[in-house]
Amino acid sequence: MAYLNENYLKLQAGYLFPEVARRVREFCEANPETAKRLIRCGIGDVTEPLPRAAIEAMKRAVEELGHRETFRGYGPEQGYEFLRSTIAQRDYRDRNIEIADDEIFVSDGSKCDCGYILDILGRQNKVAVPDPVYPVYVDTNVMAGHTGPARKDGNYEGILYLPCTAENHFVPEPPTELVDLVYLCFPNNPTGAVASRLELSAWVDYAHEHEALLLFDAAYEAYISDPEIPHSIFEIPGARECAIEFRSFSKNGGFTGVRCGFTVLPKSVLARIPQSRDRLPLHLLWQRRWSTKSNSVSYPVQRGAEALYSPEGRKQVGTLIDHYLKNARLLRDAAADGGLEAFGGVNAPYIWVKTPDGLTSWEMFDRMLRQLNVVITPGAGFGAQGEGYFRISAFNSRENAEEVTRRLKRLRGS
Amino acid sequence: MAYLNENYLKLQAGYLFPEVARRVREFCEANPETAKRLIRCGIGDVTEPLPRAAIEAMKRAVEELGHRETFRGYGPEQGYEFLRSTIAQRDYRDRNIEIADDEIFVSDGSKCDCGYILDILGRQNKVAVPDPVYPVYVDTNVMAGHTGPARKDGNYEGILYLPCTAENHFVPEPPTELVDLVYLCFPNNPTGAVASRLELSAWVDYAHEHEALLLFDAAYEAYISDPEIPHSIFEIPGARECAIEFRSFSKNGGFTGVRCGFTVLPKSVLARIPQSRDRLPLHLLWQRRWSTKSNSVSYPVQRGAEALYSPEGRKQVGTLIDHYLKNARLLRDAAADGGLEAFGGVNAPYIWVKTPDGLTSWEMFDRMLRQLNVVITPGAGFGAQGEGYFRISAFNSRENAEEVTRRLKRLRGS
Repeated sequence: MAYLNENYLKLQAGYLFPEVARRVREFCEANPETAKRLIRCGIGDVTEPLPRAAIEAMKRAVEELGHRETFRGYGPEQGYEFLRSTIAQRDYRDRNIEIADDEIFVSDGSKCDCGYILDILGRQNKVAVPDPVYPVYVDTNVMAGHTGPARKDGNYEGILYLPCTAENHFVPEPPTELVDLVYLCFPNNPTGAVASRLELSAWVDYAHEHEALLLFDAAYEAYISDPEIPHSIFEIPGARECAIEFRSFSKNGGFTGVRCGFTVLPKSVLARIPQSRDRLPLHLLWQRRWSTKSNSVSYPVQRGAEALYSPEGRKQVGTLIDHYLKNARLLRDAAADGGLEAFGGVNAPYIWVKTPDGLTSWEMFDRMLRQLNVVITPGAGFGAQGEGYFRISAFNSRENAEEVTRRLKRLRGS
Repeated sequence: MAYLNENYLKLQAGYLFPEVARRVREFCEANPETAKRLIRCGIGDVTEPLPRAAIEAMKRAVEELGHRETFRGYGPEQGYEFLRSTIAQRDYRDRNIEIADDEIFVSDGSKCDCGYILDILGRQNKVAVPDPVYPVYVDTNVMAGHTGPARKDGNYEGILYLPCTAENHFVPEPPTELVDLVYLCFPNNPTGAVASRLELSAWVDYAHEHEALLLFDAAYEAYISDPEIPHSIFEIPGARECAIEFRSFSKNGGFTGVRCGFTVLPKSVLARIPQSRDRLPLHLLWQRRWSTKSNSVSYPVQRGAEALYSPEGRKQVGTLIDHYLKNARLLRDAAADGGLEAFGGVNAPYIWVKTPDGLTSWEMFDRMLRQLNVVITPGAGFGAQGEGYFRISAFNSRENAEEVTRRLKRLRGS
């Protein structure tokens, strides 16, 4: 008699973004005329065309597969050397961060990696997540049976939530409790907050003291405009012993539909064998995970990712980032003009906004949808502490972003 | 203190193909001159260029991403409707098999799917696998903690192995024991065997009787040349209630480096909630798994897969299959001429050969490498019952396949 994984039954309602999509679809079906002026600032999906360097590299790579002399079948499961070495050199060693080529693992996106990483970690681990948080960290732990049931506020028993509030500038301090795994994401999704070198050092110190592991999501590092803010956890001394970093080409190269990201797992990160005093490098397990469960990422996609590091690629990515960051500035200013309290949007493509008039965040979602015909993401979808906030995404055309700024200003009068 | 997943420590040596690659590399380094005449019939990787229809479709799709009007970001997590409906129509409904579009889940390959599927299944399940078997089924169960330690012969405690031998034509009968999950693969990797309608019906009957679930790997269905042999488990009445099918574009469209496959999970497949008498459709969990853990497959890759179903695509795939099947016939005949007992190679791209002179399969691997300079795959790498056999892959150019046939004939004299 086949059994299902009952941990899935603990999951609350739909995953956030499908639920947003469902409400938008219902609104559009009921209001087909108004639907035409709808502007989507909900899901953090890029809108601008891919950098030309990536397009050309992918087309060349596809054509290579059409000829016997240049055809390639299975690639190395952990990614092609040409991409691993480019990443390690450009993103790390050129910035004086010690990362070897074979500490880079190419994947089909950092959302995927955030789930995959639990494959190699024990069920004994006590997990801490910021609140609000990217729902994938929590839901993948629920699915893996690392939590108890959901509480009334939507958070789960067995996870330690680290409140991110206006008071702590949305950067949590290490807890007094002992935890084994800590998810951190900076620049933050959804709050747009960044962590200083000092704040990250406190986490590395905590990890060393308690042999904890930091799972550091740096998917938005390209949006950091303040030169004092670290782009990688590995800029912090000691992080090579206690951190795994997730990176993505989704939000810099616009690869949300192309699918490519990577994990950085230094060989010096050890974890404990349960019921033993021995430790082993997680790198060994991660290497094995990829060999057994994957055949890596599409070859043309890997060539496209490589091209983002070429001189033209870098320039084109820079233009994209500038575009979205200018949107973010416009939207943040407009929210303030509309009488709203707004955070983020300076080193990140997200603006985190307090709901007015004591509205819940789903009430605000509905109000924005109906009154302004703008789709945002309700903060409560990111955790209990997100209640009373909403997220505006700056991923849009300039025209749309400017139209949203005009509509936001109308909020004050409503 | 972070703990690792100790189940990984039960895994034996390297995964089979990396181990083959390591031995070949060592041989080539030690014998650089001989290395030049090496022919690889080991790993089941295609060698011929991609069908032109797929090349053109992927290039067009890449170019679309370079323009705002046609740019696409995140796609539906379960795959684009254009591909899901094409698959359901062409591979199933056109063959009078009832499969709905939303019962197709597009993935980055069936190797990946074979691992992912365990996400939604309970740890209580007793697992049966054929022996010999594609190592991924076993290793992913070891990693998930569904087995005990390895035994001396390399097989694991806690798994029921179903011997596939010359006596049963490499098609196991349902066991007398109760099991919950059964992996089946036809046409078979590594033996090249196929299962008749009657043999598959016996498995569907077993599954119904015991509420077991069949995990049916049909990655090689395109190689079936006998019109009496089912291409899909869903050709068997009753399979819609007890089977999940895995399919791949790797071995028909040559997508081993492009990465695309799919799972067919009918909504009528139920599984039991542990500690309960209730059942739920696994489709609900699988849908959720994809929403939470993935952002689907690269858009240009999905367009490439779709193009394999176009009239030109089908013709080009047909030419590829004919090419590899002719290689298989040549290699099988040559093995027989070389005095070897050979199976498979008629409805499958693999020939399964008994080692001569009582050699173990790794001894035969080394002999083939040194004497004939041909890389094969040792049968023992696929399970205890694979000992005394080796696998020859027909994935090669005609020139190479013909050269291997000449060398194989020399075996008789050696």
